[in-house]
Amino acid sequence: MIDRIARFLPVARWLKGYNGGTFVSDSLAAVIVTLMLVPQALAYALLAGLPAEVGLYASMIPLVVYAIFGTSATLAVGPVAVASLMTASALGGIAEAGSPEYVGAALVLAALSGLILFAMGVLRLGFLANFLSHPVISGFVTASGILIAASQIGHILGINGGGQNLLEMGQGLWQQLGAINPVTVMIGGGALLFLYVCRRFLKGGLMAVGLSERLADLATKAAPVSAVIVTTAAAWFWDLGATGVKLVGEVPSGLPSISLPSLDPAIWSTLLPAAVLISLVGFVESVSVAQTLAAKRRQRIDPNAELIALGLANVGAGVGGGSPVSGGFSRSVVNFEAGAQTPIAGALTALGIAIATLTLTGLLAFLPKATLAATIIIAVSTLIDFSAIRRTLNYSRADGAAMLATIILTLGHGVELGILVGVGMSLGLYLYRTSRPHSAVVGLIPGTEHFRNVSRHDVRTDDATIILRVDESLYFANARYLEDRVLELVSARPRLKNLVLACQAVNDIDASALESLEAIDSRLKEAGITLHLAEVKGPVMDRLRKTGFCHELRGQIFLSTFEAWTSLVKAPPVITGIPKEPARISRGR
Amino acid sequence: MIDRIARFLPVARWLKGYNGGTFVSDSLAAVIVTLMLVPQALAYALLAGLPAEVGLYASMIPLVVYAIFGTSATLAVGPVAVASLMTASALGGIAEAGSPEYVGAALVLAALSGLILFAMGVLRLGFLANFLSHPVISGFVTASGILIAASQIGHILGINGGGQNLLEMGQGLWQQLGAINPVTVMIGGGALLFLYVCRRFLKGGLMAVGLSERLADLATKAAPVSAVIVTTAAAWFWDLGATGVKLVGEVPSGLPSISLPSLDPAIWSTLLPAAVLISLVGFVESVSVAQTLAAKRRQRIDPNAELIALGLANVGAGVGGGSPVSGGFSRSVVNFEAGAQTPIAGALTALGIAIATLTLTGLLAFLPKATLAATIIIAVSTLIDFSAIRRTLNYSRADGAAMLATIILTLGHGVELGILVGVGMSLGLYLYRTSRPHSAVVGLIPGTEHFRNVSRHDVRTDDATIILRVDESLYFANARYLEDRVLELVSARPRLKNLVLACQAVNDIDASALESLEAIDSRLKEAGITLHLAEVKGPVMDRLRKTGFCHELRGQIFLSTFEAWTSLVKAPPVITGIPKEPARISRGR
Repeated sequence: MIDRIARFLPVARWLKGYNGGTFVSDSLAAVIVTLMLVPQALAYALLAGLPAEVGLYASMIPLVVYAIFGTSATLAVGPVAVASLMTASALGGIAEAGSPEYVGAALVLAALSGLILFAMGVLRLGFLANFLSHPVISGFVTASGILIAASQIGHILGINGGGQNLLEMGQGLWQQLGAINPVTVMIGGGALLFLYVCRRFLKGGLMAVGLSERLADLATKAAPVSAVIVTTAAAWFWDLGATGVKLVGEVPSGLPSISLPSLDPAIWSTLLPAAVLISLVGFVESVSVAQTLAAKRRQRIDPNAELIALGLANVGAGVGGGSPVSGGFSRSVVNFEAGAQTPIAGALTALGIAIATLTLTGLLAFLPKATLAATIIIAVSTLIDFSAIRRTLNYSRADGAAMLATIILTLGHGVELGILVGVGMSLGLYLYRTSRPHSAVVGLIPGTEHFRNVSRHDVRTDDATIILRVDESLYFANARYLEDRVLELVSARPRLKNLVLACQAVNDIDASALESLEAIDSRLKEAGITLHLAEVKGPVMDRLRKTGFCHELRGQIFLSTFEAWTSLVKAPPVITGIPKEPARISRGR
Repeated sequence: MIDRIARFLPVARWLKGYNGGTFVSDSLAAVIVTLMLVPQALAYALLAGLPAEVGLYASMIPLVVYAIFGTSATLAVGPVAVASLMTASALGGIAEAGSPEYVGAALVLAALSGLILFAMGVLRLGFLANFLSHPVISGFVTASGILIAASQIGHILGINGGGQNLLEMGQGLWQQLGAINPVTVMIGGGALLFLYVCRRFLKGGLMAVGLSERLADLATKAAPVSAVIVTTAAAWFWDLGATGVKLVGEVPSGLPSISLPSLDPAIWSTLLPAAVLISLVGFVESVSVAQTLAAKRRQRIDPNAELIALGLANVGAGVGGGSPVSGGFSRSVVNFEAGAQTPIAGALTALGIAIATLTLTGLLAFLPKATLAATIIIAVSTLIDFSAIRRTLNYSRADGAAMLATIILTLGHGVELGILVGVGMSLGLYLYRTSRPHSAVVGLIPGTEHFRNVSRHDVRTDDATIILRVDESLYFANARYLEDRVLELVSARPRLKNLVLACQAVNDIDASALESLEAIDSRLKEAGITLHLAEVKGPVMDRLRKTGFCHELRGQIFLSTFEAWTSLVKAPPVITGIPKEPARISRGR
């Protein structure tokens, strides 16, 4: 019974064992994450072109919802950088940033992406996220980081930026270069320098004066809070708003009201493609963070349950006045390291944000936007990973090409085209790769029962019998390629009598490939050659037996390639291969 | 030198050895194919909604062009049933059937699909056609056959049919049922019965009176010519046109004039999707016919050269007044059996059609359309293969589902949606299948060095060491699935110390899968478990060595699973597995 409830309400799993000790751990983690989340919530709202309170609202209800339905003990849900950039990109064409229509569309986007995630979870479609390959995601995150940083330069300089891609952003900045506000530059540049120095040296400094590594790390993560406090105090004390420094301004005090987002079908259908992409990207990032952290404690998360939890969290954001949310990497790590034991830590963080919203909004009105821009730039600098490009290109040119295309198109055209082309390319390249499978004519290594590629090794072959090893599962896209390969081999060997397909690497044969095998068999028959198979895997053999193929096949199905060799090659075999070097039987193909 | 010319001009390959004997063979084949092609050319023009001469023109220039560039000695190019149906479907929305705009658009369609095929050949993109899986093509051809037969019922009854799908066709017939022309029904029904009887019994009858099988077969294939002659004579003698029997009517005598098709970009872009589909379907059918016939003589065709040849043939159709062409199955078989030795047979067939066009058009004007409809129905009846549905479903439910979807959508919605959904489904199902690869925890068969699935066999396992065999190449779509699987295994085994991935079936590891392996390794490390690999293939190992993975990996890379077992399992292993039955070590997973 508890199991069935737990399947739908993961909260039931851990609530029974909850005690005072767990609560203390969770509370401590919640305090630290709240300190980190307040400036981030404001900053990501700024990045998404939304009023500051939308970021705070996105950090309340969704966290409580996730605490009930989430399967990760430590994932910190809330507004994140990449989703905020994608939100800005999706809403850019709909209304002017910050306008009531714009905010309304953001709530629709959250609710819609929540419903998509929820539906995927119910239909157990979590595997769809797997089609976002690592190189594409990694390239997309790097490019997003660059776009996000570029979008914040305007705030640091005190001018209006804007633009969906790097070129537009550069043009926007260039045109307004005369309007730079020197005081804003001082605040923004100062905050940037301070945050950079903290990130680079604070941890080491604190450890040098005797703090534990964990404490030093957490203190470093809280650096943005001090930047916020100092620059807010300065703006209030010197009334910097009057000198043209842009401040966060009036933030409505109080909790969000619950209301349905707009139900206008035109907006819903316009936002659908963007919502799908935000959902998938957010899900992939959340799950990979959650899995990494769960594995450290030998815990597990359930990806389909995560889809439901993240989906409901986003629906919560949509009805609770917030923008789309997902699991944030840095906050989740802090939550984990600060000792969060259960999702209650997330609910307590929501409580912390609620308290901040009720008490601090008067002060936050004086917070310079340049400070938030500086925290964003420092935060996203960890997303940018150029070394991954070289590493990926070095390992696989196809993966590297998909990654580069994603980066270039995201930077040059915006987030949506970038990720779509990346996914399309990685699928296309995968299909292309499997459509031309490696295959090798093999021969016997003298004195053994092993067979190796004739063009790489000195092996025994036979004029009347050829053994072709197929190194890929056979399916429609590569079946005809195999037909071509066999016909090519046959047309070059007039004395051929037997052709053996060695199938140890064939994990599956689909209906098209079966027809190709039948076509190969009947064509070889016409040409007076017998087709044999060897080393067919059990499950593949089981399916072949259900068809007429085994009956039609004139040749035999051998258990091993050696068995095929010994029964087909009667004449003393001739030695061929590469005669230049002495016999070398190396490992490999 | 000759090799380089031959690569671009296959005609150079066989022209040197051409002699009188070859010419006699080719001429004989050409006469027989011409007899078959005249009624088919008229019939397929009727099917495509085009004037009769367009079918004749499509049987001249394209055949000569193919003779120069084609690599198949026996492929008979020209108008075919499925391409004609697709042409009618593509042009239906553009202009009224038979109007000058309609004919103009047909020439554009031929030229455009020719350019697409040519470009694919130059770019060596022939493999793209492989993505039309066998079940989808076979389902599509069956559904097209049904649609084609249904579209001809109106001609047999002497009423106007029309419609893009079975429902529309049925409605069209139903509404005009009152307008049935009894004389037409007699001619059409008579021709149908005659052709059916010929196909069914003539060959046997001729063989019974002493004809050779080959001659009897060829005579049977020429039966439509007699139906054409008899019904044309009847229509002329009794002036049936006056009684309301629809005749082919005035066919312009003389050869086609060469002219560029319309260059209106609006028409070109409207026809592009249809042209792509016609090209791919025509190419797949042509290549499979050509390969089947070539293999019988141990000849080879070059798919990319075929693309160029078929492309130029279609461009020839477009500038020479013809509709799209491809290699026809039945005519190619007749050409082969009649003894065609070189593509000269095709050029001579074009000559035969030219002579027919110059001399017979006066007579063909009296040919009843119902006769042509009867020849079409009998011809396409061979395309319809219901048994393939059951056979495919029986072998693979995924392939069967894609086939059924193709058939149902082609019949219910028309050719384009049918084939697109079929291709999409077969790709999606393939990706789905590979995204959840089979993997099995294996254990040692006592007394051997072999390992088998623990849930199927009585094998030795160890509490501290688990061996997971992965039965698929690892790539982005299944990499995270493997992560999940490993974490699931680990979280259920608190005493685990070693995890071995047995990789004998892993033909490739892409960049995403490499990252997943790294993630698995570092997560296991955090949990105090060591990851090992075993039986990694040579080429996969070569690529892994280029990365930091082998260096990072704390565990070992074993050559064989048994080696991993002997070096990791020191304690006396416990026996687990299925204890219900006596030990059975069966083949299979």
